[in-house]
Amino acid sequence: MERILTTQLREHLGKRVKIAGWLHNLRALGKINFVLVRDRAGIAQAVTESAEALTPLIDLQSESVIEIEGLVVAEAQAPGGIELREIAICVITPVTHSFTIPLNKPNLNTTLDVFLDHATVGLRHPRKRALLRLSSAIMAAFREFLNAQGFTEIQSPKLVASATESGANVFAVDYFGKRAFLAQSPQFYKQIMVGVFERVYEIGPVFRAEPHSTTRHVNEYVSMDVEFGFIENHFTVMAMLTRVVHYILAQLAERNAAELAMTHTQLPVAPETFPHIHFKDAQQLIFEKYGEDCRGEPDLAPQHERWLGQWARETHNSDFLFVVGYPMVKRPFYTHPDPANPTYSYSFDLLFRGTELVTGGQRLHRYGDYLAALTRARLPLEPFEYYLEPMKFGMPPHGGFAIGLERFVMQLCGLANLREATMFPRDQQRLTP
Amino acid sequence: MERILTTQLREHLGKRVKIAGWLHNLRALGKINFVLVRDRAGIAQAVTESAEALTPLIDLQSESVIEIEGLVVAEAQAPGGIELREIAICVITPVTHSFTIPLNKPNLNTTLDVFLDHATVGLRHPRKRALLRLSSAIMAAFREFLNAQGFTEIQSPKLVASATESGANVFAVDYFGKRAFLAQSPQFYKQIMVGVFERVYEIGPVFRAEPHSTTRHVNEYVSMDVEFGFIENHFTVMAMLTRVVHYILAQLAERNAAELAMTHTQLPVAPETFPHIHFKDAQQLIFEKYGEDCRGEPDLAPQHERWLGQWARETHNSDFLFVVGYPMVKRPFYTHPDPANPTYSYSFDLLFRGTELVTGGQRLHRYGDYLAALTRARLPLEPFEYYLEPMKFGMPPHGGFAIGLERFVMQLCGLANLREATMFPRDQQRLTP
Repeated sequence: MERILTTQLREHLGKRVKIAGWLHNLRALGKINFVLVRDRAGIAQAVTESAEALTPLIDLQSESVIEIEGLVVAEAQAPGGIELREIAICVITPVTHSFTIPLNKPNLNTTLDVFLDHATVGLRHPRKRALLRLSSAIMAAFREFLNAQGFTEIQSPKLVASATESGANVFAVDYFGKRAFLAQSPQFYKQIMVGVFERVYEIGPVFRAEPHSTTRHVNEYVSMDVEFGFIENHFTVMAMLTRVVHYILAQLAERNAAELAMTHTQLPVAPETFPHIHFKDAQQLIFEKYGEDCRGEPDLAPQHERWLGQWARETHNSDFLFVVGYPMVKRPFYTHPDPANPTYSYSFDLLFRGTELVTGGQRLHRYGDYLAALTRARLPLEPFEYYLEPMKFGMPPHGGFAIGLERFVMQLCGLANLREATMFPRDQQRLTP
Repeated sequence: MERILTTQLREHLGKRVKIAGWLHNLRALGKINFVLVRDRAGIAQAVTESAEALTPLIDLQSESVIEIEGLVVAEAQAPGGIELREIAICVITPVTHSFTIPLNKPNLNTTLDVFLDHATVGLRHPRKRALLRLSSAIMAAFREFLNAQGFTEIQSPKLVASATESGANVFAVDYFGKRAFLAQSPQFYKQIMVGVFERVYEIGPVFRAEPHSTTRHVNEYVSMDVEFGFIENHFTVMAMLTRVVHYILAQLAERNAAELAMTHTQLPVAPETFPHIHFKDAQQLIFEKYGEDCRGEPDLAPQHERWLGQWARETHNSDFLFVVGYPMVKRPFYTHPDPANPTYSYSFDLLFRGTELVTGGQRLHRYGDYLAALTRARLPLEPFEYYLEPMKFGMPPHGGFAIGLERFVMQLCGLANLREATMFPRDQQRLTP
């Protein structure tokens, strides 16, 4: 008999079927016994009054891999209103020890550290699984939208000869006796490829050797990168990003109701146009409304971002807020300055529920401007020569952005720690699993 | 005026439009002048008899970024049967030097090495661009098919604490004063995630510190990985792979006619079921038909694969051939042995036009079998403990495969060197661009 999925039972009402999966829970009450089976689609209940039918499960623990054949019956009391009866159980892979973390309780009842130590099995918990499904849905929607907009997917090298941004916080690799580095971002490559395809995107790992440990940073994460040409300025980039975010949220609402419910996730309030505020106005607002004088500082602190998020929610009824025009001094050398006031830049951050989710902006596109910018930044030309060759041979005005995938899930689902949104996080303490 | 793409001209016949892109070629014949503009979609021709209309291009070279406004006119002689007349040219980014490699000639007329040195601009050549578009189309089709089959996309960490396969050929990373490695494959993680999602795939970079230099290897490439549970044996895996390949080829035929024509690519002959031959029968066949006695050797050499490819084409009218049952001694420790003859394995290679394209097979799934396999391979348990925890807690019979993306394009398009199918290849000589 061909196996069907637990979510397909309803289509087979009144017939005998076979399901397969993990023994999620066994409640043997003696007179009546409930066997819960978890497969990739969901969880189904099988019921038997026969002790004999349960003999294959004697001495076995949850997570044993089993098959159950049975008759599909409607039963109002059962999860999903349907269950299997007159069952025959076959054990595929027996499990004889019980796992540290209960996977069949709504709450994990464990510390994050213990969970991460055993994540290779712990991720089977329905709530954990739902978080990763949301990650995967976000990636799919991101690609779908951009493909429809004429973007081309690229895969850029992660082994590079020099640091992308500044030289700080890069991991060094022993490369056939030479020194290489792990790419901190595909920034240079995505810009280069604007010369080839005009519009490109990439989803891939990025590596940051940041020595600090926070709840919202890890040392390897998934970056969803976009770059495109023939833009007016950073507002063209922000408009594209807004449409990407809208499309992702719409797809989640349409396709991932189960995962959103399982993770108790409220979709964010996202007006058609996200509000925006200039960096210096944001500092002024923080001073006036929240009483902290950060005016003149070159960057926003996490608390500043939280205040701004709160303000955007209250004033603009939006969970998203663009902060534009960050000071040039805190932005990388390829950032396009604001022609009207060159101490500020044509760059932006997108705050999502008061935390930075996206960084982006317009880049320089003229070779001469790059030479001047490198000089200003006291950077040598030589390591950047390959990057600047396309700038010598015709680049349109262009810009882009990078969305941190795990950060998106963290803010979407209201998680306390980025590690909860990461399959197998990497930080100073953790290189396994 | 809103910019349109060169491929949209026909929809605007008789109207004035604006296009933008790179100056692909300027043929100034005096009495009549042709300006070719390349954008992300294609190439369009603009024609003028007025020297004045060309003044913005004086002293400029190909690859200058320009806009042209003009009237759309049908013209049988023009490429695509359509051209712009009564034109006004506006220069967005001037280029004043001519690029080393002619991008507007059908042939690159340069060595691979010179090309790779200048690939950041050279990839704009329409044939090169088409190769990368095919890569991107292959990835899209791979994901589409697997999504429809209930697979979940994962992104596994590339920084790992121990080598995946054997410990040879891994790149070492300085990880906060400790030693980490770059993942040679997502093998362990994709198996682990079969316990969570049953069916998973990943497209991402893999790193091989192989010291040899061949035309079909680089040190970083894109691997398209699949793993799934509840299989019968390696033939279940081969059947899934066959469907993946068929789907990719069908999508290329449907969506990428332009790129296939541009790269002179003949789609392969792919019967509904790909022929298969057992490893030891393959060696016997090589001995009988091609006269080389490789019987008893533990692996196939490239020449052996070429002969087998030729035989599959002649005998089975197929560009694809499965070789199954490779000796256990040459396969990694997690490989499932053939129960009927345990010196051979339940693994396979898929040859495409006589070159290995895919490796796959069934894996062990019982904890006890892993302990025995590690002992046999004289490997310690400790570095693999995180990987084996899911095996202790219920794994179904499972297997999978990995397709090398660049290898696929190389064989599809008949390229002499894998580097031609790689955006920015990494080898012992090359860490830039």
